[in-house]
Amino acid sequence: MVSERDLIAAIARRAATAKTAGPAASPPRGSQLLQGIGDDCAVLRPDPAALTLLTTDTLVEGVHFDLSWHPPHLLGRKAVAVNISDIAAMGGLPRFVLLSLGLSGREPEEWRDRLLDGFTGAVAEYGASLIGGDTVRNPAGVMLSVTVLGEAAVPEVCLRSGGRVGDSIWVGGELGLAAAGLELCRRGLGDDPAWLPLTRAHLAPQAQVELGRTLAGRGLIHAMMDLSDGLATDLAHLCAASGLGAEVEAELLPMGELLPRAADLCRVDPLAWATSGGEDYRLLFTCSPENDPAILALTQTIAAARPRRIGRLISEPGVFLRQRGHRREIGFGGYDHFR
Amino acid sequence: MVSERDLIAAIARRAATAKTAGPAASPPRGSQLLQGIGDDCAVLRPDPAALTLLTTDTLVEGVHFDLSWHPPHLLGRKAVAVNISDIAAMGGLPRFVLLSLGLSGREPEEWRDRLLDGFTGAVAEYGASLIGGDTVRNPAGVMLSVTVLGEAAVPEVCLRSGGRVGDSIWVGGELGLAAAGLELCRRGLGDDPAWLPLTRAHLAPQAQVELGRTLAGRGLIHAMMDLSDGLATDLAHLCAASGLGAEVEAELLPMGELLPRAADLCRVDPLAWATSGGEDYRLLFTCSPENDPAILALTQTIAAARPRRIGRLISEPGVFLRQRGHRREIGFGGYDHFR
Repeated sequence: MVSERDLIAAIARRAATAKTAGPAASPPRGSQLLQGIGDDCAVLRPDPAALTLLTTDTLVEGVHFDLSWHPPHLLGRKAVAVNISDIAAMGGLPRFVLLSLGLSGREPEEWRDRLLDGFTGAVAEYGASLIGGDTVRNPAGVMLSVTVLGEAAVPEVCLRSGGRVGDSIWVGGELGLAAAGLELCRRGLGDDPAWLPLTRAHLAPQAQVELGRTLAGRGLIHAMMDLSDGLATDLAHLCAASGLGAEVEAELLPMGELLPRAADLCRVDPLAWATSGGEDYRLLFTCSPENDPAILALTQTIAAARPRRIGRLISEPGVFLRQRGHRREIGFGGYDHFR
Repeated sequence: MVSERDLIAAIARRAATAKTAGPAASPPRGSQLLQGIGDDCAVLRPDPAALTLLTTDTLVEGVHFDLSWHPPHLLGRKAVAVNISDIAAMGGLPRFVLLSLGLSGREPEEWRDRLLDGFTGAVAEYGASLIGGDTVRNPAGVMLSVTVLGEAAVPEVCLRSGGRVGDSIWVGGELGLAAAGLELCRRGLGDDPAWLPLTRAHLAPQAQVELGRTLAGRGLIHAMMDLSDGLATDLAHLCAASGLGAEVEAELLPMGELLPRAADLCRVDPLAWATSGGEDYRLLFTCSPENDPAILALTQTIAAARPRRIGRLISEPGVFLRQRGHRREIGFGGYDHFR
């Protein structure tokens, strides 16, 4: 099997070359496509002043979650958050949600109800509405395929491709927590209250909607995406889209206090979690250095946003990690679903 | 496990009661929700003159298709058609497609490429564009979760709920062909050219986009949906949404010439296929009887549309089949994914 990147490229190539040949390709007042495959969301323009954002993500039992430690309520919440994180990454507001729910049929009704309660509760907390979907039998286990439609005013949307040489690179909070939380759950420590900030990051991540809207809405930033496959891979995507490279300082990567302790317990390099662990769902963004103080000030006004500057964009292609005077390339070193 | 209808009701109940509690529920120019869960598509109104239609459907290996007889190219086409059929059922035009593709990783690259070619080829033929999606590892096999965004002008959209007493009930073509084709494939006859119209109906159904747009756009009809779970079940949904019942004449159900012969071979009642077989993907619609001639005339102008009148809406709740002077209730007698 090829890598996930190759698979996406195979799809994107066909999407770009397929010629629309329908009987009536455009209705009288049709949406324009501004951004297709290649960013966190597709971007449509239904009228001159408004943008529609579309994103979809699927979670598969045994691949994306383990029911032996993932409570159904938190799983429902997570399926919403990881999708809405893509809307946040464009600076948009989540509005409408579709859920394709696959169940084996073996799930107890109470378990299923707690899953749905978590899902619909999270949809409402993010200010969106569940408006449709599909239910299918999936003998192999639980599967949630979620589509979110978001909206934004025209100047607010921020793509991956807008990075400029010399830009500061920021992340919306600590890195690697979810990867550490996953490892702790695997070791049977998912219920230990001492590790709650880590296990919670894995079991029930939060999408940084308010941070994304503030950054994009105030025009503070040049490029943005969300961290789902690990900093090394996702920053490589942002760099590729912007035609640039990046240099990140290991000493600047925010990990919090718990992460090094968990890494000690698990005999893992905490830096590996912070650079290559998936599912951070923090925003990754770049801005002109003169906006650095304004971004730091957002810590004061937005709950759960602790933006931290971690490096800068450079003209040399590649993603480089600097540590104690040494520099090594780490691009695309994160999680690949097919590896 | 409860039935599929109960599961959908459990989801719809939560979607209706969940209170939106986000930081900013409506952007300056937000879409209005006109129709949520309960029709073929959700309907949004991004501006006063335009409507957005959203639908999603998931196909799971071993449940919705069998790779031992389903060629990848036709499977790709089918995943598109069954979703676009929901857009057709509202009278809309398909515009944008998202694909969440689950692969086990064991699929040969050539097989995968043929699947993608079929998928993107069909998207283009229906006049739409593939603009995004997700790729996931799905150890149990191939899974395609597809979301389609369609558009329509405001007066054109047709819901399930508009049926009136005395309306003629129509279907867009022969019934039961896909159910017969599935049975023939199961018996190893999928490659027999004699049965091609039946096996093709199962392997590569067509969405009736042009018929749906013409019917809704000319204001000829009152209610419409597509047939995916079998006439008995889907007509019961239309009746429930319209607060009415239906009486269908067995002698009027269009089956073509091949269906009775295949039924003979398989020792099945052809009427069972026509009333309870799933995956017809014909449009089911109702109109004032005075529009019957206009609808019949569409046969002349729209390729692949052979509308046939099969009965009428009545005030008594339930779906009844009349045959040789007898009448029996058949409502919700179609396919249930969890039964």
